[in-house]
Amino acid sequence: MTSCHGPLDPADLQGRVHTHLTAFLAAQNPRLAAISEAMGPVAEALQEFVLDGGKRLRPAFLYWGWRGAGAPDSEQILKAASCLELLHACALIHDDVMDGSDTRRGRPSVHRRFAALHRVESWRGHPEAFGTAAAILLGDLCLVWADQLLDECGLDQESLRRGRPVFDEMRTELMAGQYLDLLEQATGGTGVDGALRVARYKTAKYTIERPLHLGGVLAGADIALLEAYSAYGIPLGEAFQLRDDVLGVFGDPEVTGKPAGDDLREGKCTALVAAASVRADPGQAAALRRLVGDPLLDEQGVTRLRAVITDTGALAEVEAMIAMKLAECRACLDRIELPAEARSALAALAEAATSRRV
Amino acid sequence: MTSCHGPLDPADLQGRVHTHLTAFLAAQNPRLAAISEAMGPVAEALQEFVLDGGKRLRPAFLYWGWRGAGAPDSEQILKAASCLELLHACALIHDDVMDGSDTRRGRPSVHRRFAALHRVESWRGHPEAFGTAAAILLGDLCLVWADQLLDECGLDQESLRRGRPVFDEMRTELMAGQYLDLLEQATGGTGVDGALRVARYKTAKYTIERPLHLGGVLAGADIALLEAYSAYGIPLGEAFQLRDDVLGVFGDPEVTGKPAGDDLREGKCTALVAAASVRADPGQAAALRRLVGDPLLDEQGVTRLRAVITDTGALAEVEAMIAMKLAECRACLDRIELPAEARSALAALAEAATSRRV
Repeated sequence: MTSCHGPLDPADLQGRVHTHLTAFLAAQNPRLAAISEAMGPVAEALQEFVLDGGKRLRPAFLYWGWRGAGAPDSEQILKAASCLELLHACALIHDDVMDGSDTRRGRPSVHRRFAALHRVESWRGHPEAFGTAAAILLGDLCLVWADQLLDECGLDQESLRRGRPVFDEMRTELMAGQYLDLLEQATGGTGVDGALRVARYKTAKYTIERPLHLGGVLAGADIALLEAYSAYGIPLGEAFQLRDDVLGVFGDPEVTGKPAGDDLREGKCTALVAAASVRADPGQAAALRRLVGDPLLDEQGVTRLRAVITDTGALAEVEAMIAMKLAECRACLDRIELPAEARSALAALAEAATSRRV
Repeated sequence: MTSCHGPLDPADLQGRVHTHLTAFLAAQNPRLAAISEAMGPVAEALQEFVLDGGKRLRPAFLYWGWRGAGAPDSEQILKAASCLELLHACALIHDDVMDGSDTRRGRPSVHRRFAALHRVESWRGHPEAFGTAAAILLGDLCLVWADQLLDECGLDQESLRRGRPVFDEMRTELMAGQYLDLLEQATGGTGVDGALRVARYKTAKYTIERPLHLGGVLAGADIALLEAYSAYGIPLGEAFQLRDDVLGVFGDPEVTGKPAGDDLREGKCTALVAAASVRADPGQAAALRRLVGDPLLDEQGVTRLRAVITDTGALAEVEAMIAMKLAECRACLDRIELPAEARSALAALAEAATSRRV
């Protein structure tokens, strides 16, 4: 293990995760090519999707869960942490199929990319059906590779044996959370509490608590530390989801990589929309009923809904909830016994995950 | 480890696999219920799907791959073997979404089941979209649980460490084989050779060679035995796929659990159809072009295609290929040094996998 004593800045950590993902995917190329040269587009699509990706928040939480338990910096733990990006790639690729989303991070989603390939090649059958099928398989491949990367990370067998049940739990919770989210949309939502329950499994546990736990358990953390990670991670994760909900309505598409108002168009039962519904006067309620979930919602409709969400006080309510949950998370961080570097990194991650620009 | 000296009959092995799967799934129910009681339909659907299932061929090959390496009977290895049924459940659930199949083993496919639930509950949105999304998530859950069951099987860590790369390779090959199959249908097929290449990854390696390897590697088999398993498994797997192709056209729906002619309706580029195309006179070729891949193909159309496939000699050619590959597999089995019980079990499995009634 190499040791690192200076505080790791987020860009450094992102860079090291990127290096491990690049190396892992490069190693899969000859394996796929050995099966058939026709696998080329699959390898390319996964490389672009995984290596283009975002803030690497989940690997960061796993890494600091490990360091928080007193274990030293190493490439092995960063390799293990990188596996969460492959798991997340599966979640996003499948999620885009389920939502019928056209874009992801400002580019065509995987199913659209393969539908376009089908069209360009003038293949037989329906381009959309081919795109969907290919995206299901590419997501499956990411799910398998997440597992493989964790296995190959180079940590000792005893650490990996401890980590596996946490990894299993995390993946089951992810799939269950996604199903509950579907159900929430299908049943028309159960209000702010229902939205927060979905957020707990789909986001808070999956993005923050379980990565911290996995890092902690790999390092041999005791139960007290794992509980402290939960106390820090759950409110932070809920705040992160609430911030995501706000950005889904008010965010800059240049920053979010998603067209403005997509959540509104899809009719997502976010806490933000639920709060607006509770607070709406009859005219505002009618606008919400008419416009939320309208697949053809235009810029004017988005502007109208933004006004309703602001005027009802729902935006201010959700901002207050974010602030409260963030305060809860910070107070908890003050109480945990942690190496100084881990404490300041977790404090910075809490800000980064909930800042208005993320 | 418990020891068993008598030869295991297939029904006994199926029963023990069933017991492990039942116990594993029962243990997941409280986990899902702890997340939300709304997970009930997911748990039920997976139990029905996985426990209703078939011949348990993949666990049988894994088990005999282990015994063939001289390792003793145990519940641990049967538990490990059972994980392949969860992997297979993922493959089938996702395959049915990709093919748009209505039924599986004579019952509604998982996506149809959840579409029906959506309809009965009069939920919002499109029942079909809900069914597809739910089936993607249920398949993902099976993929995760396959991994978990292997981890929990109780074999020692050193054996599991040896087995993991084989399990990873097998799952990558499965997804790649499925993608090549999609591509084969999209490009209109590349003839008998192309169909056999798809069959090699999608079926021969996945159903027979890799399960044998995984069982062997878990038991610490040497490279010579693994190569012998390949020499036995690849021709057998190709014969198994060819038998499946024949049953897809000529099989009894009562036995296959699939409506007669579904492969023809879907336009699958099987070796059987490819052989018929090569041998067809102009009238037969026109019938093949017109009817294969027609989603509305009726009983009369199926009868006409059966006649073409028989009259061109394609059926006889494929039966001859099956016989030849089976002979190759048997000859190989005669040359491998194996415990007597494993040899006779593998011989019986070769017959069972390619018999006209499977």
